Amino acid sequence: MALPSTDTSRLDNTLAVIRTLRDQGPVARTDLGKLNGISSATVTSISAELLQQKLIRERPPETLRANGRGRPKTLIELAPNAACVVCIKLSINEIQLVVGDFSGQVRHSEHHAVPTLTLSADDLEALLEEKISAVCAQQLNGFQRLAGICLAVQGVVSSQSGAIIWSPALSFRNAPISARLAERFHCSVLLENDANCIARVLATHPDYADCPNLAVIMLGYGIGMSVLINGVPFLGANGSAAEFGHSKYQPEGALCACGRRGCIEAYASDYALYRAAVDHLALPSGDSAHPSEEQMQALTQLALQGNPIAKRIYAEAGRALGYGIANVLALFNPDLVLITGSGVRGFDAMQPALRSAIDDALVAELMGTTRIESCAWDRDMTCMGGIAMALHATDAETLLARS
Amino acid sequence: MALPSTDTSRLDNTLAVIRTLRDQGPVARTDLGKLNGISSATVTSISAELLQQKLIRERPPETLRANGRGRPKTLIELAPNAACVVCIKLSINEIQLVVGDFSGQVRHSEHHAVPTLTLSADDLEALLEEKISAVCAQQLNGFQRLAGICLAVQGVVSSQSGAIIWSPALSFRNAPISARLAERFHCSVLLENDANCIARVLATHPDYADCPNLAVIMLGYGIGMSVLINGVPFLGANGSAAEFGHSKYQPEGALCACGRRGCIEAYASDYALYRAAVDHLALPSGDSAHPSEEQMQALTQLALQGNPIAKRIYAEAGRALGYGIANVLALFNPDLVLITGSGVRGFDAMQPALRSAIDDALVAELMGTTRIESCAWDRDMTCMGGIAMALHATDAETLLARS
Repeated sequence: MALPSTDTSRLDNTLAVIRTLRDQGPVARTDLGKLNGISSATVTSISAELLQQKLIRERPPETLRANGRGRPKTLIELAPNAACVVCIKLSINEIQLVVGDFSGQVRHSEHHAVPTLTLSADDLEALLEEKISAVCAQQLNGFQRLAGICLAVQGVVSSQSGAIIWSPALSFRNAPISARLAERFHCSVLLENDANCIARVLATHPDYADCPNLAVIMLGYGIGMSVLINGVPFLGANGSAAEFGHSKYQPEGALCACGRRGCIEAYASDYALYRAAVDHLALPSGDSAHPSEEQMQALTQLALQGNPIAKRIYAEAGRALGYGIANVLALFNPDLVLITGSGVRGFDAMQPALRSAIDDALVAELMGTTRIESCAWDRDMTCMGGIAMALHATDAETLLARS
Repeated sequence: MALPSTDTSRLDNTLAVIRTLRDQGPVARTDLGKLNGISSATVTSISAELLQQKLIRERPPETLRANGRGRPKTLIELAPNAACVVCIKLSINEIQLVVGDFSGQVRHSEHHAVPTLTLSADDLEALLEEKISAVCAQQLNGFQRLAGICLAVQGVVSSQSGAIIWSPALSFRNAPISARLAERFHCSVLLENDANCIARVLATHPDYADCPNLAVIMLGYGIGMSVLINGVPFLGANGSAAEFGHSKYQPEGALCACGRRGCIEAYASDYALYRAAVDHLALPSGDSAHPSEEQMQALTQLALQGNPIAKRIYAEAGRALGYGIANVLALFNPDLVLITGSGVRGFDAMQPALRSAIDDALVAELMGTTRIESCAWDRDMTCMGGIAMALHATDAETLLARS
């Protein structure tokens, strides 16, 4: 008995070709087939269609290096201007807008200082509309299509309903935000937690290919986490899973930005470290509500240089983080816990206490083979992940728009 | 282009029919088709094959109630004696053996008091071989096939490698156990955590059909947990996920059976409650290393009757459990946390402190819509789940053995 139709598998194969070209850059047709388990006849037919739709292009022959015998293979690559996406990262008192092209490359980036905590939900929507419109007017000329928008937000979001449930950057809660932007810009709007965007980038990185079960901890002004289970971001029943920053170190402990006590964030976030230090150590001046990178660098340096007060503060932070990670190991049993974010600057100062806290907390069988590593925060991966997710979410639409 | 073969989908459809009959009992052919999205021609062909293989039978017409117009439909059901499975539950100082038939019903159950903590790995294997051989000799006459064995163990197991990593019932660690039993009995051997077996039963219960993300907490001598994500047990990278009992309430807190301090189990398990009570309250006499059900009932009664010492002990246990559950909510964001196991006898005494601890620990947005409920422990679901899992794992083999 034959199955009636292979249309679905044709679409799946075409999407697989597009995503391979995005992840790997220019690829020869024969390799595209091998990488995706598709016959060469199917690759030829799919690439002919994509060429005709101007979604891919053949790479000009002069750039080929024929460093072997025989004819060099013609490579194909995504047509970068076939579509673009905009990623907006919303954090405390700052909005970043990034434009990514169809091949996933960042083409434009801008930052705006915005007093996010004073905004109403309407203010935020109006502001985002204005900033997105401006970036579209200036940047989108060369592009054939705005395929989608990704809003990457610190805090708890519901990707399904497109609502920001709760963000430390905002003073309002439960704000549906995706629908109005989708209507205004006639495109898909993805709402994502910022840590999930970063996990998306790390999950596709070759260094972590052997870690399908990955917990990424984001240290910074607050503390976030993203958990990948078999390579897929784990969101929970309504999108608020992996709120590691608000798991507990100590009942009735230090006051957290969430209003409760004893959260990991209340010990190991930038604001917690700064709060513990500000009355006792000479730090560069700045905005006390939101410690600056310069202040945090200075505090970290003091700890690494052996200042006993700074050392004690980082040791307590490392201990809280270690107990929190012990819970993550006991409950999630991941292959790898990866610590990143701007706060990773303080990891060396925290690490001895962190490791000994995990040893204190867990027997070896529960520690298991999980590795605990840090990842340098040399570039903000949030918007890179947001762009990748927005492109992934809209590839099928982009295909349909052209066929 | 037609796909080459539909053998896989034929096998899938046949397995779906078998599992529907196991879950629902006798079903008419037309309903089997509707429930599984299979054409009536396919159901007719599959059921003819299963009848010929003696894996199903038609239900004798005299038992039908024709409470409608027209001819009563012929119902089909699994042939109970087509195969059987044995589930062994291994807990501290006790082994339970249960025989389940092909329809999933328990046909025999026996308990043995065994000093499990004094056994070596070889002793345990020899003991299990002896007990399984005996139960097979006495109980398997009517059955056509021993399809599989499920070993349900308290503690951390690796289902993939078939090794008991760490169990509070055993004094040795890292014991591969499945391979020798599989060789001895010529059948599949499944090694499972006991809480996962219980979660398997609850996950298929109609009361929890709307809770695909479910955390089941098992209170008893120790504390276990099983987490279902989208209805599938979550095992982690190497099988030790969901070790809720050893997540932390309080750094440097009470001593746990695992050897570390501050674990939830060290406050809210039977041994912890008993330890806190034994020097201060008059309880029935018993084995102090393993408090009896009678002793635990007496202690619970004291708390519910208002004895201030017993009340304080249960309040502290409830508070530890509440903080632990708060971490589960923050990290897993489940639809439902279900508390069960023999220790649920004390849930009413713990509940006020448990609820207020969760409120203290989490803001409303992280509490979300998760329900926290208890489930009466009127029958031990471990072996029922183990039988269901062993049958599920061996259905394809049973089919192949007959064709």
